[in-house]
Formats: sequence, structure tokens, C-alpha cells
Amino acid sequence: MKALVFKGPGQKAWEEVPNPTIQHPTDVIVKIDTTTICGTDLHILKGDVAAVTPGRILGHEGVGTITEIGAAVTTLAVGDQVILSCVSACGKCDYCKQGVFAHCLGDEGASGIGWIFGHLIDGTQAEYVRVPYAETSVYHLPAGVTPQQGTLLSDILPTGHEIGVRYGAVKAGDVVAVVGTGPVGLAAIATAGLYGPSHIIAIDLDANRTEAARAFGATDAVVSSDADWKEQVLALTDGLGVDVAIEAVGIPATFQMCIDLVRPGGHVANVGVHGKGVELALDALWITNITLTMGLVNTNTTSTLLKMVAQGKIPVAPFVSHTFAINDIVEAYDVFGRAAETKALKVMLIA
Amino acid sequence: MKALVFKGPGQKAWEEVPNPTIQHPTDVIVKIDTTTICGTDLHILKGDVAAVTPGRILGHEGVGTITEIGAAVTTLAVGDQVILSCVSACGKCDYCKQGVFAHCLGDEGASGIGWIFGHLIDGTQAEYVRVPYAETSVYHLPAGVTPQQGTLLSDILPTGHEIGVRYGAVKAGDVVAVVGTGPVGLAAIATAGLYGPSHIIAIDLDANRTEAARAFGATDAVVSSDADWKEQVLALTDGLGVDVAIEAVGIPATFQMCIDLVRPGGHVANVGVHGKGVELALDALWITNITLTMGLVNTNTTSTLLKMVAQGKIPVAPFVSHTFAINDIVEAYDVFGRAAETKALKVMLIA
Repeated sequence: MKALVFKGPGQKAWEEVPNPTIQHPTDVIVKIDTTTICGTDLHILKGDVAAVTPGRILGHEGVGTITEIGAAVTTLAVGDQVILSCVSACGKCDYCKQGVFAHCLGDEGASGIGWIFGHLIDGTQAEYVRVPYAETSVYHLPAGVTPQQGTLLSDILPTGHEIGVRYGAVKAGDVVAVVGTGPVGLAAIATAGLYGPSHIIAIDLDANRTEAARAFGATDAVVSSDADWKEQVLALTDGLGVDVAIEAVGIPATFQMCIDLVRPGGHVANVGVHGKGVELALDALWITNITLTMGLVNTNTTSTLLKMVAQGKIPVAPFVSHTFAINDIVEAYDVFGRAAETKALKVMLIA
Repeated sequence: MKALVFKGPGQKAWEEVPNPTIQHPTDVIVKIDTTTICGTDLHILKGDVAAVTPGRILGHEGVGTITEIGAAVTTLAVGDQVILSCVSACGKCDYCKQGVFAHCLGDEGASGIGWIFGHLIDGTQAEYVRVPYAETSVYHLPAGVTPQQGTLLSDILPTGHEIGVRYGAVKAGDVVAVVGTGPVGLAAIATAGLYGPSHIIAIDLDANRTEAARAFGATDAVVSSDADWKEQVLALTDGLGVDVAIEAVGIPATFQMCIDLVRPGGHVANVGVHGKGVELALDALWITNITLTMGLVNTNTTSTLLKMVAQGKIPVAPFVSHTFAINDIVEAYDVFGRAAETKALKVMLIA
């Protein structure tokens, strides 16, 4: 088959590799119908994720059709079209039993599994993929949800929802600020709307991006390169700060923006993947009654989100900015990698 | 009257000062029956709290008897014995209406009120004290609770309970680690027991202190100067970390201990008052699904705790290590300031 293979920092190739095979009785093999590229894949290509070694097939999102099932699989069948979750879960370990699937202790990886596709095992940017712990990790694509929409359920929608909106405890009437309007920030914006906040403020360096966020449900747009960006946000509150600040970039400056915006008693939900630590001014913050959360998606709201997508209650259409044939994945990476210029959000790859 | 007056860094005096008078119709005047000294008072005396200016009467804990009421006061009467909360609340501002009394926007201080006794207005280490917003800030001392017990309800019990135990979301079966076994850490230990955790691990540098914590409900004691302190704690879990780590010291090293102990999906509740910031290794922590909380007590569980103290369900007796006549307050400060040597916890001052 063909697959997108990581060749070491800065290098990748769409090339012929052996087809995957069943390795455990709980595996299935899936023929990819739709996959996409994540910002994390760009980090890997830069060499930022040491666990990803040359030869690894990248990708952790996609929808596909089952072509083979392991001997222990009873609830999935050849021909089923399924959404692959970015997090794999054995279903049996202590963490899985507590619903903390992100930290599954299954034995596919060095220290548990969780996010393994395109990381510790071969991923979804390929014609076929082996899916471990399939029955506890995939979702049937329901009627009314297209494969492209389903692909948004692999990672960005549950991540924005669980780690941004739910960890941030967004509730009716809240003022919610989302710092960073890449795909995951937009997923937080799109799913925050389910909870009835009074304002969803999209904050980014680029006015085009903040304005585009309105299609996902943002009620207000603030350009963070404006000198008075903070005053603009506070003017949308009672002056005391936002109830929930969602960090969807992953650098110290945007984390600090969230800390600066949140009101006493409010929540800062970090969604961004950080490459370095931050200074937390506990000398000023100890008294503030804020809650700070962070984490990897558990995908335990994927079913809920699927239902809401099928009902048309989450604005999913604008996420897909480009589509390519999967054979053109190298070109798709180029377009996605120049997102500021190409306005790429999710680039869909169709097999 | 006599009062303990801050004279600038390192200096204090028990001296004659004018009696307080009603300033607002919502004030009452209270004759102090019992008061005590907090670690925060020692910080103030060191000069660490810039808002406290020379001439200020210290103290934010105590039980007393009302001697005079303002014209607007209808639910309190002369002769009532009341617990003074360390946090004053107007009851009318947006924060008070949301139950975030710690950040009350009342007009007694420069930027809202909250903690003002012995800080922005004169405090409780005196024969009399003016109590602003009395009806929304004091509690009648119920039958079955002594004035000394009631004094523990001014600050340490609600602080340990709300900022440690409740913010930490302690629940049945949890393994709870409390780093720091001063009075507030012990208050967290004593109130954690209300929620049915499987282990409450007292962690401190001093073996005497960790052993003493057993009287408050600690099930295990770990001395943090042991090279294998962390392994000792993990051995009390399933090896994956504690469910809740409560920081009750207020320095970067103990904050980091909590981060190091908590399991994925767990909670770190910061109770300590910090004098400097900390490094938060978000590059490692973004993926951990931990929740980090901090804050000043809202005293919105004071009534609940009073009920539990009256029922004998919180081990309060061992908190009082020393009692002094209030005229001997300078000696009491000396004993409290040498707590490592004197084993002082709460030093009660009786008028």
C-alpha cells in the first residue's frame, strides 16, 4: 500500500510500504476513506516529538471501512464504516475503567497507549491501518454524518470540547475567550455554543482568522496584536474578566493571556500542546480562586458530539478548507503548513 | 482598649489605642472573647505584605460578643456571641451574589474587601473590633461549640476545607496527600476525613509533625527529607500517583512535590500563600489531565463545618497547642514564631 512515512526531521515521503496485518485478536484492519493532517504532525516533522522515529507512518485522524477483524472482535464487522479516535483505549485498565482513556495502560506503547497512531504505532495517513483495541476505540459512522465530518470527530472536536469547553466548565451566560483560532480553537468555539454562553470571543493575531471564527459561533473577534486587546475583551465582560479562558496555541505568551483575562473564580483550560514550560505567578495567583486544567482528550464525549453533529447543532461545515486526493498528500502538507497564507483549516484527504 | 499594633517590619506592641466605633450602619462592635495568631501575621511582621501599614491592629480570627450594632443591623443583637470570619462580605456585589465572597467588591478596601481584618482595617488581636458588613460576615456561635473551637472556624477550617478538600474534589476512596502539616494543612487533613478517602497522607520535613497529624485523621505519615519520600507515597497508591495533592506550605519546592505526586486525572489544590512564582512545566504537564486550583477561602462552608464540629465529626481538640491570656499576646507570638521548637499549632488568646 501507499503511506506517508516520516523520514526524520524535515523529511517525509508518500511511498510503498507493506500492508498492515492483524497482530492481536482485538485488532481490526481498516481501509482509509478519509484522513487529515493535524498541527501535531507538523511538530513531529520538525523533530519536536522524540518518540516518533523514522519509518513511522504519520496521522491519527480518519474514517475508514473495516476489511479484516481479529478473532476476539464481536461488535464490529468487515464492511463497517468507522471513525478512528486519536486515542486508543484497551477498556480494561484502571484508567480506562475510570474514563481516563487518554492514559490507558494497554500494552501497545512504552508507557501505556492513549495517543499512539502516528506516534508509537503506524498511523492513518495511509491506504490501510491496523487499529488496536478496536472495539473500545472506534465509533460507527452514524447516518447523517459524512466521512469528512466523522474525521473531525477523531481529534479536534472532542479535544476542543473535552479539554477546552468541559474542563473549562463553560455554562449558560458565561463569557468565554478562546485564544488561538486554529482548528482546535475553532472546535472549542463550535462546541462552547452547545452550553449557552453569552459571549464567545475569538482572539488571534490575524483579523482574517478571528473574523472567520464567527462562522463557528464566535460572537466577538479581538485581534491580539492590538495594543488594547485586553481592554477590548474586558469591555465584553462586566470589567472583571472572562469566566472561561481557553488556551489553544501552546506557547507561554498565549497561556499568560488567558491568566490575564480570567476573573476570580473563573477557569483557564489549556488545550495547547506546549514545547516549553511557563512561569506561573503563584505569588499573585494564589488568592484568585481560579481553576487551571490541561490534558489529552479522553474521547469520552465522541458519542455525544456525533449525535449533535448528526442533528446539525455543531457548525462543522466550515472546518474543511481544502480537499485533496490522498495521493496528493505531500501537496496537502504544503498547503496546511502555510496556513497563514493559504487559510487552511482542515485539509481533507480522500482515498 | 489594648491592641496588638504593627509598628513596621519586625516590630509590634500590645498597647493602648482608641476603642473602635460604628462607622457604617452595617457595622457592629464586638468585644473579643478568644483570638489567635495565623502564619500570615508572621508574614506581615516580616514586612512581606505591603498593604499592611504601621499602626494597623493585626489579627483576622476570633470569637466575641456584640456590644453595639449599626442602625441597619436587624439579625444580630447586643450580647450575641459570634464567630468573625477572616473574609468580610458585603453580600450585595456580583461576586457575593455568586458566592465568591473572597473577592467581595464592598467599599472597605482599595480594591474590594474579602480579607481585610488585620490587613486593610484593624483586626481581632484587640479587646474590641469593628466588624463591617456584620450580618453577611459573622456566624452565631452555636450550642455545643466553644469559643476556642469557633475561632478555628474564622480561617483555618474553612480554608483547609474549601481551598484544599473541596477544590481538590476529594471523594470516597481517594488517596489524598497533604504537603505541609501546619494548622491549615492539618485543617485540610481533618476535613478531608468527612469525604471518606482511603488514605490521607501527611507529608512534612519533621517526623514529629507528620506523626502528630494522625490525631487529625492522617492515616499515613511520610517525612519529606527521606530520600525515598516519593516512593513511600506512591507505595500507598496503585503506583500511579495520588488522586489529590494539597499544597499547604507556599513555596516552589512543595508545590512541585504536589505536581510530582498527582496521578493523571488528579487534582492539585494549592492552599499555601506564595511569596514567589513557580515554574509550571506545561511541556510535560499539558498531557496529564490534572486540575490545579488555588484561592482565598470564601467561608461559604462555615455553617456546614460548624454543624460538623458541633456533632464531633471533625477532630478539633488537637489544634489548640497553647493558651494565653490576651495580655500575654507578645509572649504568644514568640511561642508561635518558634513552632518547630515549641510544637505550637494554634495559640489561643483568651480575653
